[in-house]
Amino acid sequence: MFGIWGHTHAAELSYYGLHAQQHRGQEGAGVVVSDGEELKLHKGLGLVNDVFKHAGFKELKGTAAIAHVRYSKHGDKRRAVDSVEPLVFRTRKTSLAISHSGNIVNGEKLRDVLEDNGSILQTSTDSELLAHLIKRCKENTNEDAIIQALQQLEGAFTFLILDKENMYAAADPHGIRPLSIGKLGDAYVVASETSAFDLIGATFEREVLPGELIVINDQGLKSVRFAMREQRRLCAMEYVYFSRPDSDMNQVNVHASRKRMGIELAKEAPVEADVVTGVPDSSISAAIGYAEQSGLPYEMGIIKNRYIGRTFIQPSQELREQGVKMKLSPVRGIVEGKRVVMIDDSIVRGTTSRHIVRLLKEAGAKEVHVRIASPAIQDPCYYGIDMSTKEELIAANHSPEEIRELIEADSIAYLSVEGMKQAIVQERSIHQGICHACMTGEYPVPILDNREDPS
Amino acid sequence: MFGIWGHTHAAELSYYGLHAQQHRGQEGAGVVVSDGEELKLHKGLGLVNDVFKHAGFKELKGTAAIAHVRYSKHGDKRRAVDSVEPLVFRTRKTSLAISHSGNIVNGEKLRDVLEDNGSILQTSTDSELLAHLIKRCKENTNEDAIIQALQQLEGAFTFLILDKENMYAAADPHGIRPLSIGKLGDAYVVASETSAFDLIGATFEREVLPGELIVINDQGLKSVRFAMREQRRLCAMEYVYFSRPDSDMNQVNVHASRKRMGIELAKEAPVEADVVTGVPDSSISAAIGYAEQSGLPYEMGIIKNRYIGRTFIQPSQELREQGVKMKLSPVRGIVEGKRVVMIDDSIVRGTTSRHIVRLLKEAGAKEVHVRIASPAIQDPCYYGIDMSTKEELIAANHSPEEIRELIEADSIAYLSVEGMKQAIVQERSIHQGICHACMTGEYPVPILDNREDPS
Amino acid sequence: MFGIWGHTHAAELSYYGLHAQQHRGQEGAGVVVSDGEELKLHKGLGLVNDVFKHAGFKELKGTAAIAHVRYSKHGDKRRAVDSVEPLVFRTRKTSLAISHSGNIVNGEKLRDVLEDNGSILQTSTDSELLAHLIKRCKENTNEDAIIQALQQLEGAFTFLILDKENMYAAADPHGIRPLSIGKLGDAYVVASETSAFDLIGATFEREVLPGELIVINDQGLKSVRFAMREQRRLCAMEYVYFSRPDSDMNQVNVHASRKRMGIELAKEAPVEADVVTGVPDSSISAAIGYAEQSGLPYEMGIIKNRYIGRTFIQPSQELREQGVKMKLSPVRGIVEGKRVVMIDDSIVRGTTSRHIVRLLKEAGAKEVHVRIASPAIQDPCYYGIDMSTKEELIAANHSPEEIRELIEADSIAYLSVEGMKQAIVQERSIHQGICHACMTGEYPVPILDNREDPS
Amino acid sequence: MFGIWGHTHAAELSYYGLHAQQHRGQEGAGVVVSDGEELKLHKGLGLVNDVFKHAGFKELKGTAAIAHVRYSKHGDKRRAVDSVEPLVFRTRKTSLAISHSGNIVNGEKLRDVLEDNGSILQTSTDSELLAHLIKRCKENTNEDAIIQALQQLEGAFTFLILDKENMYAAADPHGIRPLSIGKLGDAYVVASETSAFDLIGATFEREVLPGELIVINDQGLKSVRFAMREQRRLCAMEYVYFSRPDSDMNQVNVHASRKRMGIELAKEAPVEADVVTGVPDSSISAAIGYAEQSGLPYEMGIIKNRYIGRTFIQPSQELREQGVKMKLSPVRGIVEGKRVVMIDDSIVRGTTSRHIVRLLKEAGAKEVHVRIASPAIQDPCYYGIDMSTKEELIAANHSPEEIRELIEADSIAYLSVEGMKQAIVQERSIHQGICHACMTGEYPVPILDNREDPS
Repeated sequence: MFGIWGHTHAAELSYYGLHAQQHRGQEGAGVVVSDGEELKLHKGLGLVNDVFKHAGFKELKGTAAIAHVRYSKHGDKRRAVDSVEPLVFRTRKTSLAISHSGNIVNGEKLRDVLEDNGSILQTSTDSELLAHLIKRCKENTNEDAIIQALQQLEGAFTFLILDKENMYAAADPHGIRPLSIGKLGDAYVVASETSAFDLIGATFEREVLPGELIVINDQGLKSVRFAMREQRRLCAMEYVYFSRPDSDMNQVNVHASRKRMGIELAKEAPVEADVVTGVPDSSISAAIGYAEQSGLPYEMGIIKNRYIGRTFIQPSQELREQGVKMKLSPVRGIVEGKRVVMIDDSIVRGTTSRHIVRLLKEAGAKEVHVRIASPAIQDPCYYGIDMSTKEELIAANHSPEEIRELIEADSIAYLSVEGMKQAIVQERSIHQGICHACMTGEYPVPILDNREDPS
Repeated sequence: MFGIWGHTHAAELSYYGLHAQQHRGQEGAGVVVSDGEELKLHKGLGLVNDVFKHAGFKELKGTAAIAHVRYSKHGDKRRAVDSVEPLVFRTRKTSLAISHSGNIVNGEKLRDVLEDNGSILQTSTDSELLAHLIKRCKENTNEDAIIQALQQLEGAFTFLILDKENMYAAADPHGIRPLSIGKLGDAYVVASETSAFDLIGATFEREVLPGELIVINDQGLKSVRFAMREQRRLCAMEYVYFSRPDSDMNQVNVHASRKRMGIELAKEAPVEADVVTGVPDSSISAAIGYAEQSGLPYEMGIIKNRYIGRTFIQPSQELREQGVKMKLSPVRGIVEGKRVVMIDDSIVRGTTSRHIVRLLKEAGAKEVHVRIASPAIQDPCYYGIDMSTKEELIAANHSPEEIRELIEADSIAYLSVEGMKQAIVQERSIHQGICHACMTGEYPVPILDNREDPS
Repeated sequence: MFGIWGHTHAAELSYYGLHAQQHRGQEGAGVVVSDGEELKLHKGLGLVNDVFKHAGFKELKGTAAIAHVRYSKHGDKRRAVDSVEPLVFRTRKTSLAISHSGNIVNGEKLRDVLEDNGSILQTSTDSELLAHLIKRCKENTNEDAIIQALQQLEGAFTFLILDKENMYAAADPHGIRPLSIGKLGDAYVVASETSAFDLIGATFEREVLPGELIVINDQGLKSVRFAMREQRRLCAMEYVYFSRPDSDMNQVNVHASRKRMGIELAKEAPVEADVVTGVPDSSISAAIGYAEQSGLPYEMGIIKNRYIGRTFIQPSQELREQGVKMKLSPVRGIVEGKRVVMIDDSIVRGTTSRHIVRLLKEAGAKEVHVRIASPAIQDPCYYGIDMSTKEELIAANHSPEEIRELIEADSIAYLSVEGMKQAIVQERSIHQGICHACMTGEYPVPILDNREDPS
Repeated sequence: MFGIWGHTHAAELSYYGLHAQQHRGQEGAGVVVSDGEELKLHKGLGLVNDVFKHAGFKELKGTAAIAHVRYSKHGDKRRAVDSVEPLVFRTRKTSLAISHSGNIVNGEKLRDVLEDNGSILQTSTDSELLAHLIKRCKENTNEDAIIQALQQLEGAFTFLILDKENMYAAADPHGIRPLSIGKLGDAYVVASETSAFDLIGATFEREVLPGELIVINDQGLKSVRFAMREQRRLCAMEYVYFSRPDSDMNQVNVHASRKRMGIELAKEAPVEADVVTGVPDSSISAAIGYAEQSGLPYEMGIIKNRYIGRTFIQPSQELREQGVKMKLSPVRGIVEGKRVVMIDDSIVRGTTSRHIVRLLKEAGAKEVHVRIASPAIQDPCYYGIDMSTKEELIAANHSPEEIRELIEADSIAYLSVEGMKQAIVQERSIHQGICHACMTGEYPVPILDNREDPS
């Protein structure tokens, strides 16, 4: 998500702000711009570039905007453009644009109540849910109605809301999903990741705190607490693989935390080998850390084939069986005859890991030692990361030794939870807590909806 | 370039073969397929994916193919699709498809003779020149005519030629441009870079030797010498930045040679600093080598923004001045307050280097020490690398100290020619010589056409 | 609109059904298909072909479908794809797809009540309005709820509604907008125009009657009366220009009615002239009728330039002033030196008429006598035809003589209301009445919403 | 073809000029613009709109242009964009752009001679042939070389040629293909059809005469005779169906000639019937003539479905068998129970005629009497109209009675050759002769190349 208030190029900067966060969602993108009189929407399915090449920035004039990239969660049945956010809601009294990130765990229950009272919800988005809760509030101002509506929500969420007079930014009471505030000259910017600030030349100010509603308007920035602030539980997977390496979260640089995870991993699980290599792109930092700590040389043993976009023609099954590679190629010149430490950031189902181990062995690697720079993922995520069901998580159903065999590696080791905390949390305080429910089953927010379908 | 003989999926494999070599030319792409009766052409402007999404592999049936990506040299005036290779020439007697890589230095003179004798040349390509030379030969077979035609050419070249009965591959007498032969089951494959073999699961056999014409047909592979074999002079820039890190050339892995350049550079030009960073993507290998040798930590101080394709909306001048970044972003969390060693593979005009130094300083770097993992480029290339004119080469007109000042760095150093040779050439033999004319002015082939316009 | 029940190619046939009715709306198109378990939607902005080329009929499997082309009414502020119908509404209990044609005149009032009770309406479509009225009904079945909801509506409307078990078709109590039922083998088809039946080889059965709700399901067709059936008031403009000439309405062929309008016009307003010509395409029938009755030769004095689609590059103002024609060209060889009777189906603002008169005069016509094959349009339409506001209607503000002068014609005459009725209504009965409110101000349904903005 | 000299909007006007002639070729389009210093080319496959939407008129600045739409003749094997004209040929001395219409009957022989002398021809176009003939001439000026080259050609042709100083327009010695000259202010325009002049507001001046080369430059227009002027033999099929009805040829309006063909046909082959109908679009004029002469009412018994472009999804065989119509629909309300005279402009293979007769009968026509407004086509065309081989011409192999049976009509009659001449030729002089080789086998130019493959 990205938001901006008080800049004449609000729409263009939203484009660049989304661009810097493209990896957070590749299914669709949208922006709503306000010129103080009207909310103008442009959105579409596809990558940010594809959506915005038809944007017509001239028609999106305005000084405030919120923007969004859509991340398709496993199990979503309605993939249509209707669900691409921001959503705009117009009534006689007001117009609201809403976008969100995360997952509301009591969403089904709230929807049932709304439907029983005659409302029609047209998407399965949490943004539409919030809009209906706001509409049902009898409060006088949007701000009051938003606060009342937010208080009914349980789960992991960040929201950006725009009306003609204000931009609102909110984070759930545990701060599970990240949301940062920056400044660009006199303008305010808000983004899920600080990499968006770097791209547009904005400077980081602070994070939206757990349970906080930020209201930005021409009078400046105001902070309102809509909920008791709980211990911070920032999603560990943001550090492990979801965020860009150049983003900071909780003032911790993601690349640096990954490198430390590699260092910790080398301490916890050393191995005799010739080279260290990482699975591009998200495991490179950890691989370099592992190499540094272990004294082994870091080499590019696996190459990611670029230029792979929507137009890429996938090889047929026949050609794949004949050896045509897809996204990743091993580098024979590097791995042939070598004992390779292969660093990966995480294992979900294990199919990719097996694929890479095989590639390396086919290219002549003598041994492949898999080292995972995070703890084993054994439980589903209910807070917004698409981590499928328990059945699909290899570590939920197999011991490390079984996994080693399944992925055809010579050895395997995971980083410990303690090691991961060490690498991520740099100051010991309640503000620095992380959510590792998917690794430990310790869910900071109870799951209220049907647990069978976590999406 | 890519060629294949004897495989039922010749067109598809050509697509993947070009895909692996997309970095060698992004202006256009084409393929000619032979089914033994007809040469079928598909080509277009744009990236390989864009061109091939309309290919219709069903209409490109055949067991032999040659394919090409177009690299637009500075000064090319006719950018139309007509110049995208392979070119197909049909006469009553035969049909030929031709593609080439490199640059013929006596091309203008040969064209004048042809025009004076009534020929019409429709492109400025060396492939069309070769076709006319072949047509004018009175030899009985295509093979004899090709040999006679190749003997008239001076310069740096590799050619792939296809007729209904044969595929031909040729390299110039100095072997300035690379061309490798591989096998995929019983099929023969030919490619400029071996990364194409890895992608499709083919195995490397050997390189096409300087002055050699390879003829491949259903009887197998035949080698013909069309010229005295001179000392090998493989283009050093292939190692420095042009090739993919996973390719091997002269049996030397490109990533490994780059890493060794970084190691040599650290020996020759150490510096007291806190972190080493490389300009993505081509300088990462050298940066890791420098870090390993120097003992300094390698960090991701600069991030390349992906998803930048043809649809990317360039920021306006106004937004750029306000700080919107383009392709590269500095990582504040890494470089702030640090003394940074910035490794780049080479400097041509110096504008990119200055841009990156500024980015790092704006992101808070205390010092920026530029280390270039190749010698200074002081002379134009006449052999196929687009290196503009002498006027534009910063090192042709400025001392290192002047360059340091121009790019606003705290120090600068280049790798020595000797250091580069050390890093690239692994066995001392005449087969391992490299061309470093752009660094030393020692041109292995005399420049016959007007030197003013090297393109 | 088009609907089909009971055919394995429901989606494809909907495509052809819309195609035959493309002229009824060119802004967008959509289809909802039911396979008895799920409603699947495909829609988009643009012409039917453009929308359906991405349809993927394989993913739109099902035996029932309703489909729609969007006609953009003057004053619509939200042109986004969200307003393209059919709209789909999903609740826990049921899913409904709705599309409509026409205009609800008490829509604003109904919306206010809904919003006051907490509903959020996301489009300005009458289909969404109906959905909310249905949702608010406490009836047990969709059928009962639909009846109750329809009874709250005033205005001109036809609706097609699809749930998993039934297809519903409804027409307003005056039958202002047309809707016909046909059979294609055992399948039922419904369409605004019978030309859709001809294209797919279906046979006409009967029209949906005023105030009737048709329910079609696997048990067959059932008729329910939801309102007192008023005197039929089929929109006269459907005959005058809106429908295709090959459609029948009220069992009267549109081309034949137009030809009769031309014949009546020739009787009412003869003129001494050399040739009769019509403005393509909708005035050709009337022109032939006029020629037949008057004994003057019918000639192609005006040509419509085809191939004009979305990709057509409009001439700049400068080129238009220099004489570049757009959609219509005069045929000099036909009109030069001639007294021309120019037949047009109607005049709304008069700008097109003046343009054509000028074209004819520039091409050498000695005299141009304009004959309009319908009465003067003096009042806005509130029932679904985009006829702008009273201010824009030339005949609301000018006498025929003034209009003649404004459009630079040598004479002008309109068909009388009586003459038009004669031409359209073939049997005298209450079932054959037409709505001519825009010509006479006699509105069959009182206008309840704000009259200032008829859209 | 279209050409313009002396107008600042040469490229845009070429676009409109081609647009008006789109029906003459739908496979591709191109334009070459000259600014006096350079020839700039833009071309592509597809309709004029599709090609020109990417044109960038800003980059096509210049005051002279020639433009072309490609008509794909049966048997063309090379459909690539390379064959789309104009073709541009650049040599050291000069640059030429060439486009042509028609067919050279001694082309194969001329090509053989050129190839034997070392030339490479890259397309099968007559334009490239002419370019090589020009290049081989030793004349000093382009004009002299063009004249010498034209003198070597036999067949039907018109050429437009552009160099930096002149535009050339040539017609073959019999004037088989049409080419007209007009004026637009001070600028000269040239076009195959005068409809192009009407669209851009230009006025007709005169035709390019048989055997004439027109040279237009800043000094004005000059006429050169390159061949003896033979009796004029303008292609009859231009009147019968190929040209637009609003074009004039030989100062005869095409619509008017078609109407006269209908009148003659009614005189020659009357029939007792109820209605006359024509096959849209090209037979409408003749049908109106037939109706006028016969006293029967003209009605729209067949409707052409518009909006059918490249994006149209063709019905599957299964749906077609179930009755889904394609391009033409019968109008049941018009033809049911009627005896119908169906006017068609010509019959080539007879399949379309049978299709339409069936449509009419299925829609209830009691009798269908086919009347063809031209003589039977019994011989192939070697002069540029794609009329396939003799085997495919139904009238070459069947008597009228057999054809009647094959197309399932109740009666059939053709217009006589004499009747056709009567309708077309308005003044008796050698300037007004027509070519009717395809109806009579009287070829005005002997066929020199292999007669087996007329294309």
